Amino acid sequence: MKKNILKNLIINIFKKHGLIKKHAIICADAIINAELVGAKSHGVARLASYCKRINKKVINPKPKIRIKKTSSSITNIDADNAVGFIGADLGINYAIQNAKKTGLGLVAVKNSGHYGLSGYYAERAAKNGLIAFCFTNAPPAVAPYGSKKTLFGTNPICFAAPTHTKIPFVLDASISMINRGKIRVAEKLKKKIPLGVALDKNGKPTTDPIKALKGLQLPIAGFKGSGLAWMIDILSGVITGGNHGGKVKDPFDDFTGPQNIGHLFFTFKSNLFIKNYVERIKENIKNVKKLPKLKGIKNIYYPGEKKVMRFKYNSKKEINIPTKILDEIYLLDKS
Amino acid sequence: MKKNILKNLIINIFKKHGLIKKHAIICADAIINAELVGAKSHGVARLASYCKRINKKVINPKPKIRIKKTSSSITNIDADNAVGFIGADLGINYAIQNAKKTGLGLVAVKNSGHYGLSGYYAERAAKNGLIAFCFTNAPPAVAPYGSKKTLFGTNPICFAAPTHTKIPFVLDASISMINRGKIRVAEKLKKKIPLGVALDKNGKPTTDPIKALKGLQLPIAGFKGSGLAWMIDILSGVITGGNHGGKVKDPFDDFTGPQNIGHLFFTFKSNLFIKNYVERIKENIKNVKKLPKLKGIKNIYYPGEKKVMRFKYNSKKEINIPTKILDEIYLLDKS
Repeated sequence: MKKNILKNLIINIFKKHGLIKKHAIICADAIINAELVGAKSHGVARLASYCKRINKKVINPKPKIRIKKTSSSITNIDADNAVGFIGADLGINYAIQNAKKTGLGLVAVKNSGHYGLSGYYAERAAKNGLIAFCFTNAPPAVAPYGSKKTLFGTNPICFAAPTHTKIPFVLDASISMINRGKIRVAEKLKKKIPLGVALDKNGKPTTDPIKALKGLQLPIAGFKGSGLAWMIDILSGVITGGNHGGKVKDPFDDFTGPQNIGHLFFTFKSNLFIKNYVERIKENIKNVKKLPKLKGIKNIYYPGEKKVMRFKYNSKKEINIPTKILDEIYLLDKS
Repeated sequence: MKKNILKNLIINIFKKHGLIKKHAIICADAIINAELVGAKSHGVARLASYCKRINKKVINPKPKIRIKKTSSSITNIDADNAVGFIGADLGINYAIQNAKKTGLGLVAVKNSGHYGLSGYYAERAAKNGLIAFCFTNAPPAVAPYGSKKTLFGTNPICFAAPTHTKIPFVLDASISMINRGKIRVAEKLKKKIPLGVALDKNGKPTTDPIKALKGLQLPIAGFKGSGLAWMIDILSGVITGGNHGGKVKDPFDDFTGPQNIGHLFFTFKSNLFIKNYVERIKENIKNVKKLPKLKGIKNIYYPGEKKVMRFKYNSKKEINIPTKILDEIYLLDKS
């Protein structure tokens, strides 16, 4: 499907579900971006779930968002259970504004939902000359180290820095071996998942996405990955006023209430401590790229580079949507 | 050796090497703490190397430290090639002061050296009611993803949060499978290292610490760990004015100049966005701890808990120092 046709379709669907046009565009842009960077698990595959949550009254299509400035650097946002993209869009915009004014920005968002890709927001800050961290939590998927039950989300750690090229440095790494969305897509398309990324509910390794979703995902690096997931639950849940400690509801299966996900955005100017950031970051990247490569490796890429390459490649062609998801979209549009 | 005897010995040695008493105490406290938390690779095993670097004039025993306040939240420190502990001690103190005053603190330190354990500083912020990140880079040890040569340090990611118990949440995870100090200790004591944590210079797995030190250490989680190491090199090197991109000198082998390591401390009040942080963090930890455990696991610990348990246990007995290192210490004291 052509990008613009898909975008208008998504805007229409969100408007039919009660969103104002401005909000519908924010959501559509984030979803299209996920499709174009190849993160299809965060693309139109999720559209039906957002709409279902609106219908079940656990996402608020007409949120009354409250914004409180605590200081010229700090902003506190209550997203009133809007679609996650909307609170996150506001959050990163304030974080950028604050940092441009004072050098530093720290913004918390609560009563939000799944906001798509962290890198989408961090990248925006980096393109404004800022260093950025974006944190969000997610429904239980990963078991804390030593536990046989999931509690942490796949909680990504996301960091961006300007490179003064067209492609900022954007690290967006979930602390699980594989992101949950990929397992969802495998489930939807009846495909297998790799061995070693998840266990079934009895603690046995599995390649069946359905069993993995009922079981648990493995964190990277054991205790370290589990600790990173916990850190992100504190940052985006405990201190923002969002749900935490295993309380974030699954967006696909649990309609008993809003998700109340929290986000935290931290931004600062890249030249706070030095005058020659541009030279320094360029030298840094050059030093890494010129290292001798392992056999079979042509280039060393910095985080974010391959994503932009995928974005450019995908932007030139139509967006490929599996029939099952196309059917869902048409139903939503006709509803 | 009794803790106080060892402490006085270390203070004496640093004073003999030209440090003022106040600085010698800061260094001794950090080294004793490393011994007590069981991080012996960051303890007295490193004393000889600090002294050798002073003798070789690549650590400055009488630094003229320059402190510049950019705003009430932001401080920029040039440690003038002091022993790393000294710049880091100042850095975290300003980060704590700034955050207590304005809610937020961001402090960069450049021209510093190896500062010991990140958790030692982060813990101090958490005990002051603050959330904290501490970043530092280190000499090349880990190969960027795709490269067969090391460039990144084992660059720990360190985060702390108050728990309103005696034990703060302190995550201090190096992005390598094993920390480099542990390989150094194994080398010194002629012990083997585990398989799967390092490769020799030909890219073959090795359990020989000497071969591992000449070869490369493996990052956690492949591209993700490599990306985290890169992020920390940007945060502590590129933006602080410290060395970066593989330029940090090895403290043990390279006396051609100062290390110029950079540190970055970011702190903020835990109750910026919510009134009931204490309740929330307690509930968070309770939820995780009460999960059903894997077979053979009695308790789920949060990061930092076991370290404090080791600290308490070790504080009750004498500090065990291998003969080889004892000999080094006596030589330094007599020199």
